[in-house]
Amino acid sequence: MELSEQDKKIFEAHQGGKITIDSTPVRNMDELAVVYTPGVAKVCTAIADKPNLDKYLTIKKNSVAVVTDGTAVLGLGNIGPQASMPVMEGKAMLFKQLADVDAYPIAIDAQGKTVDEIVECVKMIAPGFGGINLEDISAPRCFEIEEKLQKAIDIPVFHDDQHGTAIVTTAALINALKITGKKAEDLKVVFSGVGAAGVACTKMMLDIGVKNIIGCDRAGAIFKGRSANMNSIKESYAEYTNPNLEKGSLSQILEGADMFVGLSGPNLIGEEELKTMAKDPIVFAMSNPIPEVDPIMAKKYCKIIATGRSDFPNQINNVLGFPGVFRGLLDSNAYTVTENMKVAAAQAIADCVTDSELNPDYIIPDAFNPNVAKVVAEAVARVAKEEKVCKEVRWGDPEMKAFVTGAKQTVEA
Amino acid sequence: MELSEQDKKIFEAHQGGKITIDSTPVRNMDELAVVYTPGVAKVCTAIADKPNLDKYLTIKKNSVAVVTDGTAVLGLGNIGPQASMPVMEGKAMLFKQLADVDAYPIAIDAQGKTVDEIVECVKMIAPGFGGINLEDISAPRCFEIEEKLQKAIDIPVFHDDQHGTAIVTTAALINALKITGKKAEDLKVVFSGVGAAGVACTKMMLDIGVKNIIGCDRAGAIFKGRSANMNSIKESYAEYTNPNLEKGSLSQILEGADMFVGLSGPNLIGEEELKTMAKDPIVFAMSNPIPEVDPIMAKKYCKIIATGRSDFPNQINNVLGFPGVFRGLLDSNAYTVTENMKVAAAQAIADCVTDSELNPDYIIPDAFNPNVAKVVAEAVARVAKEEKVCKEVRWGDPEMKAFVTGAKQTVEA
Repeated sequence: MELSEQDKKIFEAHQGGKITIDSTPVRNMDELAVVYTPGVAKVCTAIADKPNLDKYLTIKKNSVAVVTDGTAVLGLGNIGPQASMPVMEGKAMLFKQLADVDAYPIAIDAQGKTVDEIVECVKMIAPGFGGINLEDISAPRCFEIEEKLQKAIDIPVFHDDQHGTAIVTTAALINALKITGKKAEDLKVVFSGVGAAGVACTKMMLDIGVKNIIGCDRAGAIFKGRSANMNSIKESYAEYTNPNLEKGSLSQILEGADMFVGLSGPNLIGEEELKTMAKDPIVFAMSNPIPEVDPIMAKKYCKIIATGRSDFPNQINNVLGFPGVFRGLLDSNAYTVTENMKVAAAQAIADCVTDSELNPDYIIPDAFNPNVAKVVAEAVARVAKEEKVCKEVRWGDPEMKAFVTGAKQTVEA
Repeated sequence: MELSEQDKKIFEAHQGGKITIDSTPVRNMDELAVVYTPGVAKVCTAIADKPNLDKYLTIKKNSVAVVTDGTAVLGLGNIGPQASMPVMEGKAMLFKQLADVDAYPIAIDAQGKTVDEIVECVKMIAPGFGGINLEDISAPRCFEIEEKLQKAIDIPVFHDDQHGTAIVTTAALINALKITGKKAEDLKVVFSGVGAAGVACTKMMLDIGVKNIIGCDRAGAIFKGRSANMNSIKESYAEYTNPNLEKGSLSQILEGADMFVGLSGPNLIGEEELKTMAKDPIVFAMSNPIPEVDPIMAKKYCKIIATGRSDFPNQINNVLGFPGVFRGLLDSNAYTVTENMKVAAAQAIADCVTDSELNPDYIIPDAFNPNVAKVVAEAVARVAKEEKVCKEVRWGDPEMKAFVTGAKQTVEA
């Protein structure tokens, strides 16, 4: 291939990988005696005695494994663990940049492995991590892996392709409702695509009060009792969506809809369909790089248009979610992720756009807004504490507690 | 417990862990487009097309997993994966400090797991790493895990408790021979302890020409045909050691021995035993913190005394080995570790002590000698190339090769 100037810049930026390990230096035997033998034995013994101390005395306090099997990487599909690494490293960079989380990529060779074998592998390597970010794992097994893994381990598990997308999409919806004056409970929302992201977005919208969501695949609307082109995910999806059992093609279902959410592929709907939607339609066309609807054309018919692209207004970008979510999970010592945490995260992102800033072309903060991760983290940690899903630490003795929590000379009761 | 000032320093140094992730910043959409979407897709595609490119375009080029199951941590025994983390983090610090290797701790929950299950887990997470440093895994399963894992994956696997110790011990022996004028083939060497380190040290000494090595456990000399207190490791050990089938207690076997190697426990031999050894005896008493022989007392009877302690001369410290070994393995793109690499590493360490510096109290360089890792790396890489155990990289096209190897504008043939 011919490398463009941008390609050259990209390959150069990837030489030798994009993350490194850093630590304070160990330059002599005195320093070695503190951070390694013989001093380290004291710390090991303290943790062996009170296991939860690992959250204070090891990297577990701030570390997240970015785990993939390389089966659904970007839009590239099942390219395998090695080829997925540049994405996982990029994710680790963003974790660090936006929320000071130390994330490390773990690319799993899951060739021929069952869901249970993958879960068991991640469970086995989990002791040193404070959280697991699942990434780019194909549907439907991503659902089962996440659920089983969370049951198996006592650190939070979060599949970003599902919940990260859902949080940011819901944040955008919250602000879209403010502008349009529509109410969640009155909305008719049509989804194109019910994969990992589609299912998670649907569930979060139900969480915030949307009642009427209809998912579409290539066979049209998914409804309870449909026989063609079904699987266990869609069977389940039909149970909690499409209450009026609407049937028909995506175009037919869009008639009278208040909102379209595209998580499928390019150029699915055109002018004719947009014209049939309800007044002031909201369109989130998130297929990348080519959205489901041409955003320039759609401007004529829609009140609000959001895409996954940075070169149009209202970019729905996961970067707004996962760094702050894990910051909050780690800071609160949470052992799981709850629905309320995700809703609180979405609300926090939405609230980053002030009422005076809010307008149809600015419903969601920019990806690098420095405030977002902070407020998301606070929201997640607050809910973790309210819901009491935080691990308590058992201390060996008050003096040690004082030392490892930074209280130093002031020994707490 | 009462915390001493040193304890306080130790606990403070461990707050939040000892290593972090570092990367160049990603501050805006332009930078994001290079290191993450959409640019990263080019790199993923290049690796999917030519898998070995991952050694140039991901962290695999410089990354080592420090893998433990927490079953044999320092002298603390089976304290589990969480409590082992401070040691693994310390190891990662030393990798970085001494050889600029990016090592990441992976503490495995191997409770109730078989050797095959542990091997399978490490195999599954291996794709993103350039090497595996096994650490603090109990004998005898450490032998089987290492052997099976190396057969299963195409990156080098190195159990430091075995081979790191063996390399540094052999380096010390090479210089001890120079001083005493003894020859490897004439030596009678007595080992106390035939665990992970004892077996590996024995094998390396055989590699450099020692013929007569006798291992002892609590039941005394191990010999072919012994029935009491045997296991598969000792059965095998008896096959390649003790050619004269000597029998008796450690004290009895030490009579006439040129060298004692202690890898077992404190205060095993005293003046009486030392007196019975051959002329100019060499004693490596490596039990920590209390050596098998009191080094001050032994000074009266021995030509050369080495220990595992930093407060006596001749410290046999693994820190002299593993950083340079992995630097050499990564730099040469080696896919395995060979006996000749280990011998070359030992020789390189020994050679760091010049003839003019060499004396009975200085047979081995200091742990922080800045030259050691460099010469060890060169020795390992040289042997890797001689033995042709380096992976070749298939390039997509000459222009990309030029870019990712830094040749930039000069396109190579």
